[in-house]
Amino acid sequence: MIADISVSVDGFVAGPDPTLEDPLGRGGEQLHEWVLKLSAWRGPHGREGGETGPDDEVVRDGRERTGAVIMGRRMYSGGSGPWEQDPNAEGWWGEEPPFHTDVFVLTHHAREPKPMPAGNRFVFVTDGPEAGLEQARAVAGEKDVLVAGGGEAVQQYLAAGLLDEIQVHVAPVLLGDGVRLFTGGAGGALEIDRVVASPGVTHLRYRLVS
Amino acid sequence: MIADISVSVDGFVAGPDPTLEDPLGRGGEQLHEWVLKLSAWRGPHGREGGETGPDDEVVRDGRERTGAVIMGRRMYSGGSGPWEQDPNAEGWWGEEPPFHTDVFVLTHHAREPKPMPAGNRFVFVTDGPEAGLEQARAVAGEKDVLVAGGGEAVQQYLAAGLLDEIQVHVAPVLLGDGVRLFTGGAGGALEIDRVVASPGVTHLRYRLVS
Repeated sequence: MIADISVSVDGFVAGPDPTLEDPLGRGGEQLHEWVLKLSAWRGPHGREGGETGPDDEVVRDGRERTGAVIMGRRMYSGGSGPWEQDPNAEGWWGEEPPFHTDVFVLTHHAREPKPMPAGNRFVFVTDGPEAGLEQARAVAGEKDVLVAGGGEAVQQYLAAGLLDEIQVHVAPVLLGDGVRLFTGGAGGALEIDRVVASPGVTHLRYRLVS
Repeated sequence: MIADISVSVDGFVAGPDPTLEDPLGRGGEQLHEWVLKLSAWRGPHGREGGETGPDDEVVRDGRERTGAVIMGRRMYSGGSGPWEQDPNAEGWWGEEPPFHTDVFVLTHHAREPKPMPAGNRFVFVTDGPEAGLEQARAVAGEKDVLVAGGGEAVQQYLAAGLLDEIQVHVAPVLLGDGVRLFTGGAGGALEIDRVVASPGVTHLRYRLVS
Protein backbone atom coordinates (compact mmCIF):
# COMPACT_ATOMS: atom_id res chain seq x y z
CA MET A 1 0.00 0.00 0.00
CA ILE A 2 1.38 3.36 -1.07
CA ALA A 3 0.42 6.88 -0.06
CA ASP A 4 0.81 9.13 -3.08
CA ILE A 5 0.10 12.85 -2.80
CA SER A 6 1.21 16.27 -3.99
CA VAL A 7 2.56 18.52 -1.27
CA SER A 8 4.06 22.00 -0.94
CA VAL A 9 7.63 22.51 0.23
CA ASP A 10 6.18 23.56 3.58
CA GLY A 11 4.15 20.38 3.89
CA PHE A 12 0.60 21.32 2.93
CA VAL A 13 -1.69 19.21 0.73
CA ALA A 14 -4.26 22.02 0.44
CA GLY A 15 -4.28 25.72 1.12
CA PRO A 16 -6.33 27.50 3.79
CA ASP A 17 -10.08 28.13 3.61
CA PRO A 18 -11.22 25.50 1.12
CA THR A 19 -14.68 26.18 -0.30
CA LEU A 20 -16.91 24.44 -2.83
CA GLU A 21 -15.63 26.88 -5.45
CA ASP A 22 -12.02 26.55 -4.37
CA PRO A 23 -11.73 23.00 -3.02
CA LEU A 24 -7.96 23.08 -2.69
CA GLY A 25 -7.98 26.24 -0.59
CA ARG A 26 -6.15 29.48 -1.34
CA GLY A 27 -3.18 28.74 -3.55
CA GLY A 28 -3.75 24.99 -3.39
CA GLU A 29 -4.15 24.59 -7.14
CA GLN A 30 -0.41 25.28 -7.41
CA LEU A 31 0.19 21.82 -5.93
CA HIS A 32 -1.29 20.15 -8.99
CA GLU A 33 -0.22 22.40 -11.86
CA TRP A 34 2.59 20.03 -12.71
CA VAL A 35 0.25 17.14 -13.44
CA LEU A 36 -2.42 18.93 -15.47
CA LYS A 37 -0.15 19.54 -18.43
CA LEU A 38 1.09 15.96 -18.77
CA SER A 39 0.18 13.64 -21.59
CA ALA A 40 -0.53 10.91 -19.05
CA TRP A 41 -3.12 13.15 -17.43
CA ARG A 42 -4.68 14.63 -20.57
CA GLY A 43 -5.18 11.36 -22.45
CA PRO A 44 -7.60 9.74 -20.00
CA HIS A 45 -9.52 13.03 -19.95
CA GLY A 46 -10.03 12.92 -23.71
CA ARG A 47 -7.54 15.68 -24.43
CA GLU A 48 -4.73 15.39 -26.93
CA GLY A 49 -1.09 16.29 -26.56
CA GLY A 50 0.55 17.24 -23.31
CA GLU A 51 4.09 17.02 -22.05
CA THR A 52 6.10 13.84 -21.96
CA GLY A 53 9.28 13.29 -19.95
CA PRO A 54 10.11 12.27 -16.40
CA ASP A 55 6.96 13.64 -14.73
CA ASP A 56 4.82 11.93 -17.33
CA GLU A 57 6.62 8.65 -16.77
CA VAL A 58 6.10 8.89 -13.01
CA VAL A 59 2.36 9.36 -13.51
CA ARG A 60 2.06 6.55 -16.10
CA ASP A 61 4.09 4.20 -13.96
CA GLY A 62 1.96 5.01 -10.92
CA ARG A 63 -1.25 4.44 -12.80
CA GLU A 64 -0.10 1.09 -14.18
CA ARG A 65 0.82 -0.09 -10.69
CA THR A 66 -2.44 1.04 -9.08
CA GLY A 67 -5.32 -1.41 -8.68
CA ALA A 68 -7.48 0.54 -6.24
CA VAL A 69 -7.55 3.98 -4.62
CA ILE A 70 -8.52 4.95 -1.07
CA MET A 71 -9.36 8.47 0.09
CA GLY A 72 -10.89 10.24 3.04
CA ARG A 73 -14.39 11.72 2.96
CA ARG A 74 -13.04 15.27 2.94
CA MET A 75 -10.94 14.60 -0.11
CA TYR A 76 -13.99 13.17 -1.82
CA SER A 77 -16.46 15.97 -1.12
CA GLY A 78 -15.02 18.44 1.37
CA GLY A 79 -18.01 17.69 3.58
CA SER A 80 -18.82 15.70 6.68
CA GLY A 81 -21.99 14.37 8.29
CA PRO A 82 -24.95 12.76 6.53
CA TRP A 83 -24.72 12.64 2.72
CA GLU A 84 -28.13 14.23 2.18
CA GLN A 85 -26.77 17.36 3.87
CA ASP A 86 -23.54 17.42 1.86
CA PRO A 87 -23.86 19.94 -0.99
CA ASN A 88 -20.97 18.23 -2.77
CA ALA A 89 -22.11 14.65 -2.22
CA GLU A 90 -21.32 13.75 -5.84
CA GLY A 91 -17.65 14.66 -5.35
CA TRP A 92 -15.38 17.19 -7.00
CA TRP A 93 -14.80 15.51 -10.30
CA GLY A 94 -18.07 15.69 -12.21
CA GLU A 95 -18.21 13.52 -15.32
CA GLU A 96 -14.44 13.07 -15.54
CA PRO A 97 -13.06 11.62 -12.32
CA PRO A 98 -9.30 11.20 -12.72
CA PHE A 99 -9.44 7.68 -11.30
CA HIS A 100 -9.04 4.55 -13.34
CA THR A 101 -9.91 2.02 -10.66
CA ASP A 102 -12.51 1.71 -7.93
CA VAL A 103 -12.13 4.40 -5.27
CA PHE A 104 -12.87 3.54 -1.64
CA VAL A 105 -14.07 6.56 0.35
CA LEU A 106 -13.67 6.37 4.14
CA THR A 107 -16.77 7.83 5.78
CA HIS A 108 -18.96 7.45 8.83
CA HIS A 109 -22.10 7.58 6.72
CA ALA A 110 -23.33 4.58 4.73
CA ARG A 111 -24.16 4.98 1.07
CA GLU A 112 -24.60 2.80 -2.02
CA PRO A 113 -21.65 2.61 -4.43
CA LYS A 114 -21.68 5.35 -7.05
CA PRO A 115 -20.63 4.38 -10.57
CA MET A 116 -18.33 6.60 -12.62
CA PRO A 117 -18.94 7.07 -16.35
CA ALA A 118 -16.07 4.69 -17.22
CA GLY A 119 -17.63 1.87 -15.21
CA ASN A 120 -15.40 1.98 -12.14
CA ARG A 121 -17.01 3.00 -8.85
CA PHE A 122 -16.82 5.16 -5.76
CA VAL A 123 -17.41 2.73 -2.87
CA PHE A 124 -18.24 4.14 0.56
CA VAL A 125 -16.62 2.33 3.47
CA THR A 126 -18.03 2.88 6.95
CA ASP A 127 -16.16 0.29 8.99
CA GLY A 128 -12.79 1.99 9.20
CA PRO A 129 -9.47 2.29 7.40
CA GLU A 130 -8.47 -1.36 7.79
CA ALA A 131 -11.75 -2.56 6.31
CA GLY A 132 -11.24 -0.04 3.50
CA LEU A 133 -7.84 -1.52 2.80
CA GLU A 134 -9.23 -5.06 2.75
CA GLN A 135 -11.92 -4.13 0.26
CA ALA A 136 -9.42 -2.22 -1.86
CA ARG A 137 -6.99 -5.15 -1.86
CA ALA A 138 -9.75 -7.48 -3.01
CA VAL A 139 -10.28 -5.46 -6.20
CA ALA A 140 -6.60 -4.51 -6.69
CA GLY A 141 -5.44 -8.10 -7.05
CA GLU A 142 -1.71 -8.09 -7.77
CA LYS A 143 -1.60 -4.32 -8.12
CA ASP A 144 -1.02 -1.65 -5.49
CA VAL A 145 -3.57 0.02 -3.30
CA LEU A 146 -2.94 3.78 -3.36
CA VAL A 147 -4.02 6.21 -0.63
CA ALA A 148 -4.57 9.51 -2.40
CA GLY A 149 -5.26 11.64 0.70
CA GLY A 150 -6.11 13.67 2.52
CA GLY A 151 -3.62 14.07 5.29
CA GLU A 152 -5.86 12.43 7.87
CA ALA A 153 -6.31 9.23 5.86
CA VAL A 154 -2.57 9.00 5.20
CA GLN A 155 -1.90 9.54 8.90
CA GLN A 156 -4.34 6.79 9.90
CA TYR A 157 -2.69 4.19 7.67
CA LEU A 158 0.75 5.35 8.74
CA ALA A 159 -0.15 5.09 12.42
CA ALA A 160 -1.64 1.63 11.87
CA GLY A 161 1.60 0.46 10.26
CA LEU A 162 -0.19 -0.41 7.03
CA LEU A 163 1.78 1.73 4.58
CA ASP A 164 4.60 0.13 2.59
CA GLU A 165 5.59 3.23 0.63
CA ILE A 166 5.08 6.97 0.58
CA GLN A 167 5.46 9.05 -2.56
CA VAL A 168 5.34 12.83 -2.28
CA HIS A 169 5.29 15.05 -5.35
CA VAL A 170 6.88 18.20 -3.94
CA ALA A 171 5.61 21.28 -5.79
CA PRO A 172 7.85 24.36 -5.65
CA VAL A 173 5.61 26.59 -3.57
CA LEU A 174 5.24 27.68 0.06
CA LEU A 175 1.53 27.82 0.90
CA GLY A 176 2.13 29.20 4.39
CA ASP A 177 -1.06 27.72 5.75
CA GLY A 178 -3.61 25.01 5.04
CA VAL A 179 -4.02 21.28 5.53
CA ARG A 180 -0.85 19.46 6.53
CA LEU A 181 0.11 16.08 5.09
CA PHE A 182 1.94 15.06 8.25
CA THR A 183 -0.01 16.14 11.29
CA GLY A 184 2.39 14.27 13.53
CA GLY A 185 2.03 11.31 15.79
CA ALA A 186 3.44 8.48 13.73
CA GLY A 187 7.17 8.17 13.20
CA GLY A 188 9.37 5.61 11.53
CA ALA A 189 12.48 4.94 9.53
CA LEU A 190 12.36 5.23 5.76
CA GLU A 191 14.55 4.19 2.87
CA ILE A 192 14.83 6.34 -0.21
CA ASP A 193 13.40 4.27 -3.03
CA ARG A 194 13.44 6.70 -5.96
CA VAL A 195 13.99 10.40 -6.64
CA VAL A 196 12.82 11.86 -9.93
CA ALA A 197 13.63 15.51 -10.55
CA SER A 198 12.22 17.81 -13.20
CA PRO A 199 12.09 21.59 -13.52
CA GLY A 200 8.54 21.72 -12.17
CA VAL A 201 8.25 19.16 -9.38
CA THR A 202 10.29 16.62 -7.40
CA HIS A 203 9.01 13.08 -6.88
CA LEU A 204 10.31 11.44 -3.70
CA ARG A 205 9.40 7.82 -3.06
CA TYR A 206 10.21 6.10 0.23
CA ARG A 207 9.86 2.59 1.60
CA LEU A 208 8.81 2.27 5.22
CA VAL A 209 11.28 0.19 7.18
CA SER A 210 9.50 -1.92 9.76
CA MET B 1 20.75 34.87 1.82
CA ILE B 2 20.06 31.16 1.97
CA ALA B 3 18.32 29.04 4.60
CA ASP B 4 20.04 25.66 4.76
CA ILE B 5 18.76 23.01 7.12
CA SER B 6 18.26 19.26 7.53
CA VAL B 7 14.66 18.20 7.85
CA SER B 8 12.68 14.98 8.19
CA VAL B 9 10.22 13.88 5.51
CA ASP B 10 7.43 15.05 7.83
CA GLY B 11 8.96 18.50 8.20
CA PHE B 12 10.73 18.48 11.56
CA VAL B 13 14.18 20.00 12.23
CA ALA B 14 14.39 18.43 15.70
CA GLY B 15 12.52 15.71 17.54
CA PRO B 16 10.32 16.17 20.60
CA ASP B 17 11.57 16.84 24.13
CA PRO B 18 15.05 18.27 23.49
CA THR B 19 17.27 18.24 26.56
CA LEU B 20 20.84 19.27 27.28
CA GLU B 21 21.86 15.64 26.82
CA ASP B 22 19.75 15.17 23.71
CA PRO B 23 19.67 18.60 22.07
CA LEU B 24 18.04 17.39 18.87
CA GLY B 25 15.15 15.77 20.71
CA ARG B 26 14.04 12.15 20.46
CA GLY B 27 15.21 10.73 17.14
CA GLY B 28 16.54 14.08 15.95
CA GLU B 29 20.09 12.81 15.45
CA GLN B 30 18.77 10.85 12.46
CA LEU B 31 18.43 14.16 10.62
CA HIS B 32 22.19 14.64 10.62
CA GLU B 33 23.54 11.10 10.20
CA TRP B 34 24.09 11.71 6.51
CA VAL B 35 26.55 14.55 7.12
CA LEU B 36 28.63 13.05 9.91
CA LYS B 37 30.23 10.42 7.69
CA LEU B 38 31.29 12.78 4.93
CA SER B 39 34.87 13.70 4.16
CA ALA B 40 33.83 17.36 3.96
CA TRP B 41 32.56 17.15 7.53
CA ARG B 42 35.33 15.03 9.04
CA GLY B 43 38.27 17.01 7.65
CA PRO B 44 37.50 20.29 9.45
CA HIS B 45 37.04 18.26 12.64
CA GLY B 46 40.52 16.81 12.39
CA ARG B 47 39.35 13.37 11.31
CA GLU B 48 40.63 11.52 8.30
CA GLY B 49 38.71 9.67 5.64
CA GLY B 50 35.00 9.83 5.19
CA GLU B 51 32.75 9.39 2.22
CA THR B 52 33.02 11.38 -0.97
CA GLY B 53 30.36 11.65 -3.63
CA PRO B 54 27.31 13.83 -4.24
CA ASP B 55 26.50 14.54 -0.57
CA ASP B 56 30.10 15.49 0.06
CA GLU B 57 30.09 17.84 -2.91
CA VAL B 58 26.92 19.52 -1.70
CA VAL B 59 28.52 20.18 1.69
CA ARG B 60 31.81 21.39 0.22
CA ASP B 61 30.04 23.62 -2.25
CA GLY B 62 27.88 25.08 0.50
CA ARG B 63 30.85 25.77 2.72
CA GLU B 64 32.75 27.51 -0.06
CA ARG B 65 29.80 29.75 -0.80
CA THR B 66 29.16 30.68 2.84
CA GLY B 67 30.66 33.86 4.30
CA ALA B 68 28.63 34.11 7.50
CA VAL B 69 26.08 32.05 9.43
CA ILE B 70 23.00 33.22 11.33
CA MET B 71 21.10 31.15 13.88
CA GLY B 72 18.47 31.58 16.55
CA ARG B 73 19.25 31.50 20.25
CA ARG B 74 17.59 28.11 20.70
CA MET B 75 19.73 26.56 18.03
CA TYR B 76 22.80 27.98 19.73
CA SER B 77 22.10 26.84 23.30
CA GLY B 78 18.58 25.48 23.62
CA GLY B 79 17.98 28.12 26.26
CA SER B 80 16.23 31.46 26.60
CA GLY B 81 16.38 34.38 29.00
CA PRO B 82 19.53 35.90 30.54
CA TRP B 83 22.80 34.19 29.63
CA GLU B 84 23.92 33.77 33.23
CA GLN B 85 20.90 31.52 33.78
CA ASP B 86 21.50 29.44 30.64
CA PRO B 87 23.26 26.17 31.59
CA ASN B 88 24.37 25.78 27.97
CA ALA B 89 25.52 29.37 27.42
CA GLU B 90 28.69 28.18 25.68
CA GLY B 91 26.66 26.40 23.01
CA TRP B 92 26.44 22.80 21.88
CA TRP B 93 29.68 22.46 20.03
CA GLY B 94 32.46 22.56 22.64
CA GLU B 95 35.93 22.95 21.19
CA GLU B 96 34.95 21.93 17.69
CA PRO B 97 32.14 24.12 16.40
CA PRO B 98 31.33 23.02 12.84
CA PHE B 99 31.32 26.61 11.61
CA HIS B 100 34.03 28.11 9.47
CA THR B 101 32.84 31.70 9.55
CA ASP B 102 31.48 34.10 12.13
CA VAL B 103 28.13 32.97 13.48
CA PHE B 104 25.51 35.60 14.39
CA VAL B 105 23.16 34.44 17.14
CA LEU B 106 19.78 36.19 17.37
CA THR B 107 18.97 36.81 21.04
CA HIS B 108 17.18 39.28 23.29
CA HIS B 109 20.10 39.26 25.73
CA ALA B 110 23.29 41.23 25.08
CA ARG B 111 26.66 39.53 25.33
CA GLU B 112 30.23 40.04 24.18
CA PRO B 113 31.35 38.09 21.11
CA LYS B 114 32.71 34.64 21.93
CA PRO B 115 35.76 33.48 19.97
CA MET B 116 35.96 29.93 18.61
CA PRO B 117 39.27 28.03 18.70
CA ALA B 118 39.82 28.60 14.96
CA GLY B 119 39.56 32.39 15.39
CA ASN B 120 36.08 32.92 14.03
CA ARG B 121 33.44 34.16 16.48
CA PHE B 122 29.94 33.75 17.83
CA VAL B 123 28.46 37.25 17.74
CA PHE B 124 25.28 37.96 19.70
CA VAL B 125 22.80 40.23 17.97
CA THR B 126 20.06 41.86 20.05
CA ASP B 127 18.50 44.28 17.59
CA GLY B 128 16.56 41.83 15.48
CA PRO B 129 16.85 39.60 12.42
CA GLU B 130 17.38 42.44 9.94
CA ALA B 131 20.24 43.86 12.00
CA GLY B 132 21.67 40.35 12.21
CA LEU B 133 21.57 40.07 8.45
CA GLU B 134 23.30 43.45 8.02
CA GLN B 135 26.11 42.45 10.34
CA ALA B 136 26.45 39.06 8.69
CA ARG B 137 26.58 40.63 5.24
CA ALA B 138 29.34 42.96 6.36
CA VAL B 139 31.61 40.02 7.18
CA ALA B 140 30.43 37.76 4.35
CA GLY B 141 31.56 40.12 1.61
CA GLU B 142 30.83 38.54 -1.75
CA LYS B 143 29.86 35.25 -0.19
CA ASP B 144 26.45 34.05 1.00
CA VAL B 145 24.86 34.56 4.38
CA LEU B 146 23.44 31.23 5.54
CA VAL B 147 20.60 30.85 8.06
CA ALA B 148 21.21 27.52 9.74
CA GLY B 149 18.03 27.42 11.87
CA GLY B 150 16.05 26.89 13.86
CA GLY B 151 12.63 26.96 12.34
CA GLU B 152 11.73 30.26 14.00
CA ALA B 153 14.74 32.11 12.58
CA VAL B 154 14.07 30.74 9.09
CA GLN B 155 10.43 31.75 9.40
CA GLN B 156 11.34 35.31 10.43
CA TYR B 157 13.57 35.83 7.42
CA LEU B 158 11.04 34.22 5.14
CA ALA B 159 8.22 36.42 6.46
CA ALA B 160 10.42 39.51 6.06
CA GLY B 161 11.08 38.64 2.42
CA LEU B 162 14.82 38.48 3.02
CA LEU B 163 15.53 34.93 1.85
CA ASP B 164 16.82 34.39 -1.69
CA GLU B 165 17.14 30.61 -1.47
CA ILE B 166 16.08 27.67 0.68
CA GLN B 167 17.98 24.39 0.75
CA VAL B 168 16.51 21.47 2.64
CA HIS B 169 18.43 18.26 3.17
CA VAL B 170 15.58 15.76 3.47
CA ALA B 171 16.59 12.84 5.67
CA PRO B 172 14.63 9.59 5.16
CA VAL B 173 12.85 9.49 8.49
CA LEU B 174 9.45 10.37 9.93
CA LEU B 175 9.95 11.89 13.38
CA GLY B 176 6.22 12.16 14.09
CA ASP B 177 6.68 15.10 16.44
CA GLY B 178 9.13 17.86 17.30
CA VAL B 179 10.10 21.30 16.01
CA ARG B 180 8.73 22.15 12.60
CA LEU B 181 10.79 23.95 9.97
CA PHE B 182 7.75 25.62 8.45
CA THR B 183 5.40 26.79 11.15
CA GLY B 184 3.25 28.53 8.58
CA GLY B 185 2.39 32.13 7.95
CA ALA B 186 4.68 33.02 5.08
CA GLY B 187 3.95 31.77 1.60
CA GLY B 188 5.49 32.36 -1.77
CA ALA B 189 6.37 30.94 -5.14
CA LEU B 190 9.59 29.01 -5.56
CA GLU B 191 11.70 27.79 -8.46
CA ILE B 192 13.57 24.51 -8.25
CA ASP B 193 17.23 25.42 -8.43
CA ARG B 194 18.93 22.07 -7.86
CA VAL B 195 18.08 18.52 -6.78
CA VAL B 196 20.88 16.21 -5.66
CA ALA B 197 19.88 12.65 -4.79
CA SER B 198 21.91 10.04 -2.97
CA PRO B 199 20.94 6.83 -1.18
CA GLY B 200 20.98 8.56 2.21
CA VAL B 201 19.51 12.04 1.78
CA THR B 202 17.92 14.32 -0.82
CA HIS B 203 19.13 17.91 -1.25
CA LEU B 204 16.46 20.26 -2.59
CA ARG B 205 17.45 23.85 -3.33
CA TYR B 206 14.88 26.47 -4.26
CA ARG B 207 14.98 30.12 -5.31
CA LEU B 208 12.33 32.40 -3.90
CA VAL B 209 10.45 34.17 -6.68
CA SER B 210 9.53 37.67 -5.62
